[in-house]
Amino acid sequence: MADKSEKTKARLPRGLADRSAEDIRAVEKMMATIRSVYELYGFEPVDQPMIEYTDALGKFLPDQDRPNEGVFSFQDDDDQWLSLRYDLTAPTARFVAENYDRLPKPYRSYRSGWVFRNEKPGPGRFRQFMQFDADTIGTPGVAADAEMAMMMADVMEALGIKRGDYVIRVNNRKVLDGVLEAIGLGGDQNAGRRLTVLRAIDKLDKLGPEGVRLLLGPGRWDGGEEGEGDFAKGAGLNDAQAEAVLLATARNGQAGQDSSIGANAVYQEGVSELATIEGLVRAAGYGEDRVAMDRSVVRGLEYYTGPVFEAELLAEIPNEDGQIVRFGSVGGGGRYDGLVSRFRGEPVPATGFSIGVSRLMTALKNLGKLDTSDVIAPVVVLVMDKDTESLGRYQKMVAGLRAAGIRAEMYLGGAGMKAQLKYADRRGSPIAVIQGGDERAKGEVQIKDLIEGARLSAEITDNAEWRAARPAQVTVAEGDLVGEVKKILAAQAADRAKGGA
Amino acid sequence: MADKSEKTKARLPRGLADRSAEDIRAVEKMMATIRSVYELYGFEPVDQPMIEYTDALGKFLPDQDRPNEGVFSFQDDDDQWLSLRYDLTAPTARFVAENYDRLPKPYRSYRSGWVFRNEKPGPGRFRQFMQFDADTIGTPGVAADAEMAMMMADVMEALGIKRGDYVIRVNNRKVLDGVLEAIGLGGDQNAGRRLTVLRAIDKLDKLGPEGVRLLLGPGRWDGGEEGEGDFAKGAGLNDAQAEAVLLATARNGQAGQDSSIGANAVYQEGVSELATIEGLVRAAGYGEDRVAMDRSVVRGLEYYTGPVFEAELLAEIPNEDGQIVRFGSVGGGGRYDGLVSRFRGEPVPATGFSIGVSRLMTALKNLGKLDTSDVIAPVVVLVMDKDTESLGRYQKMVAGLRAAGIRAEMYLGGAGMKAQLKYADRRGSPIAVIQGGDERAKGEVQIKDLIEGARLSAEITDNAEWRAARPAQVTVAEGDLVGEVKKILAAQAADRAKGGA
Repeated sequence: MADKSEKTKARLPRGLADRSAEDIRAVEKMMATIRSVYELYGFEPVDQPMIEYTDALGKFLPDQDRPNEGVFSFQDDDDQWLSLRYDLTAPTARFVAENYDRLPKPYRSYRSGWVFRNEKPGPGRFRQFMQFDADTIGTPGVAADAEMAMMMADVMEALGIKRGDYVIRVNNRKVLDGVLEAIGLGGDQNAGRRLTVLRAIDKLDKLGPEGVRLLLGPGRWDGGEEGEGDFAKGAGLNDAQAEAVLLATARNGQAGQDSSIGANAVYQEGVSELATIEGLVRAAGYGEDRVAMDRSVVRGLEYYTGPVFEAELLAEIPNEDGQIVRFGSVGGGGRYDGLVSRFRGEPVPATGFSIGVSRLMTALKNLGKLDTSDVIAPVVVLVMDKDTESLGRYQKMVAGLRAAGIRAEMYLGGAGMKAQLKYADRRGSPIAVIQGGDERAKGEVQIKDLIEGARLSAEITDNAEWRAARPAQVTVAEGDLVGEVKKILAAQAADRAKGGA
Repeated sequence: MADKSEKTKARLPRGLADRSAEDIRAVEKMMATIRSVYELYGFEPVDQPMIEYTDALGKFLPDQDRPNEGVFSFQDDDDQWLSLRYDLTAPTARFVAENYDRLPKPYRSYRSGWVFRNEKPGPGRFRQFMQFDADTIGTPGVAADAEMAMMMADVMEALGIKRGDYVIRVNNRKVLDGVLEAIGLGGDQNAGRRLTVLRAIDKLDKLGPEGVRLLLGPGRWDGGEEGEGDFAKGAGLNDAQAEAVLLATARNGQAGQDSSIGANAVYQEGVSELATIEGLVRAAGYGEDRVAMDRSVVRGLEYYTGPVFEAELLAEIPNEDGQIVRFGSVGGGGRYDGLVSRFRGEPVPATGFSIGVSRLMTALKNLGKLDTSDVIAPVVVLVMDKDTESLGRYQKMVAGLRAAGIRAEMYLGGAGMKAQLKYADRRGSPIAVIQGGDERAKGEVQIKDLIEGARLSAEITDNAEWRAARPAQVTVAEGDLVGEVKKILAAQAADRAKGGA
């Protein structure tokens, strides 16, 4: 197996990543806060497996023209197609439909977990990522949508994001649907063009109105200039139609000159629902700085049928690549009245919100809101003698430290003292404990304060001075080990609190 | 979409399951405890994605004769084969091999997560399940294995399992390897037969020595009698060979009469390593009741190369099907010196332990060790008027309750008071808050203690008596809502502590 010529290459498929201890701890901390807000609102945890029947998931991914594109799929041994879930909403819909009668309704639930997209990965774009969703199923009233928006505003503040540094934007898909119907894009035969319009509008931030105008009309070269990149076919709207769409999806959207738009029933319903949501959130004390009505929000997913939301970070903070940017969307959602219904054959209205965990975690880390420096690396007990009896004695020392709640490990490698101290350094250990033959004979242990030691060695430039200072090291009776280690850890904690080394 | 004739069936593929709020909370609680023990021992969290290159995972599953059997696999768009991980050890090996130079060594890490087996599901046997592993990579010394065994004993006690109700059994794969070499089953040409022997021994608990003897020899009918079920081909050992294997893998295994076994170098090494582990754990104060040497433990996985462990619950408790049984294995592991090496082309010794999360959770729940009754369902604020202004007022009530840390929700359905109280009952809500027009005019709210109410209604059999008692309901000024709710919740908590309703 150890033959070099035959060895397997250790590598990950693209778009997949390992997670570090720091990121795992930061995510845990963030999720605990989000969970506490969801719980306060009365939502209950529930979760679904990662594999579902492909037909149960449906095909609702953006930029997906061929069946199963965007999704990891495989055949079961009875030839049925299975897929890895691409979001948490579709499995939720399946679960609720399957258990509808026994669930309290409206059914408020939350879930977090990994989802998978079989797409071309890019910077900050992964094929496995984590979402944290909340959903309310079984009520058509927009009070449920208003609650979603307010809860997300509360989540942002619970995470330490200051008011003014975030906003929850709310729109209603019916507004755009009404406009499209009024300009002649209603009906099943135009479903494809409507989807093209939707995805064009969703790119407003990225391409600006002129780029979107091309996508609404004849189409656009990905690179911006003719012949640059691939050509994206447009929705084929004429100038007046494109103008009406752009007017309606401006931030403070307008029906414009076209009287048929203002008169359209779906458009009116959308506008009126938005007004109700606005009334509800204002009555509950949430101002425009927290929940804003914004006609430019459309969300790229096909399955939304009413109100749609987006949580946006306004703060200018470093993104994944270290550039200072307005961070943008960290989550979103909307009403999906059709998703549960397609299993039940009866209307089951539903609304939900999904947080992009990695993206929000990156933002919070860059804002300094996910400090995990309170996690202290273990004390390392060095192994100076390797006979079973000595190992047993070192083992007892770590057991004693652990019994006092102190992270501790016995060095398990084979190397000498220098290598062991290097290991402790690499681990970021606060303290090393040493007992060689001399100390054992006297019933003593040596305790090295590695953090104080590092500080001294940084300050002391002269080698003679270094030796004279005998950096941060004490020898105590074996029975005093735990007490002394506690004392040093407390002193280090006090230093950290003062902003010291 | 709501057309009955076209509706999609809401169902899960077999061997997959949704998780309830109760199970999610119980698992969270259990994992937090396990994590705290791993952390105390100096282990660091790290995790890998669920998808890996198939060749990076290797083929080490039991009962897997054809390539990719037992694993969910699919092709990437560059035609390379990807698989869902079937355990956490193989991805760990890939990760450590890929990042070897930058990791501290020995490298102690832990991880939890879902793994997938494309197998025939059965009772208590799922195609997606959760494991929680700890691994130490980079040291050949059995002190690392001894530490694993002791840490798992500590995990069991931290979870509330009494001493005597569990045991960590330890053996060494080299003992069996030495026996097999001594009886003529050494060499590459016998790898298949050795694997058959291994898996036969692993079934000792299930089949008893006579069933295993058949599997070691000519083979065995699955049903026990000739012609019952499928015929499992045996390892083809003769009687003396089978006897030697059975003797060596009895609980207090023996080399037996065959002098070539006692003289075998691999056998000797295995026995000697076991003695060292025993010395280390005893020196650290772990008695036989916690960590026991047991030659019958072999573990079914092919990749183990040295010490192997099994955590066994001795308590007789209900299993998944409610039958009172000796619960058995809840985790195990061993040394896998070849797994990282196959990427590196140099020896990278490693040892690890894996806990079966669902199985252990079931055991703990049945032992009453994972009580989640401290999670209180939300207070429900009923909706008596549905205009935006009233909804805003109800919204403010729930906001006030939440600000005081009380789970609270506004009813979001469309129904009358009776349906709303039924909903609150279904949710298990402790309290309902009601404000109709009369109360609003007087600036008051009605607060119903639903738990006291249910208790009274159970005690009172007579309808007149019921009306006279006016079960647990108070009317207070709107400003006193939060204070009064707090008072009732505290009284309910006191009742629960007394073991009351």
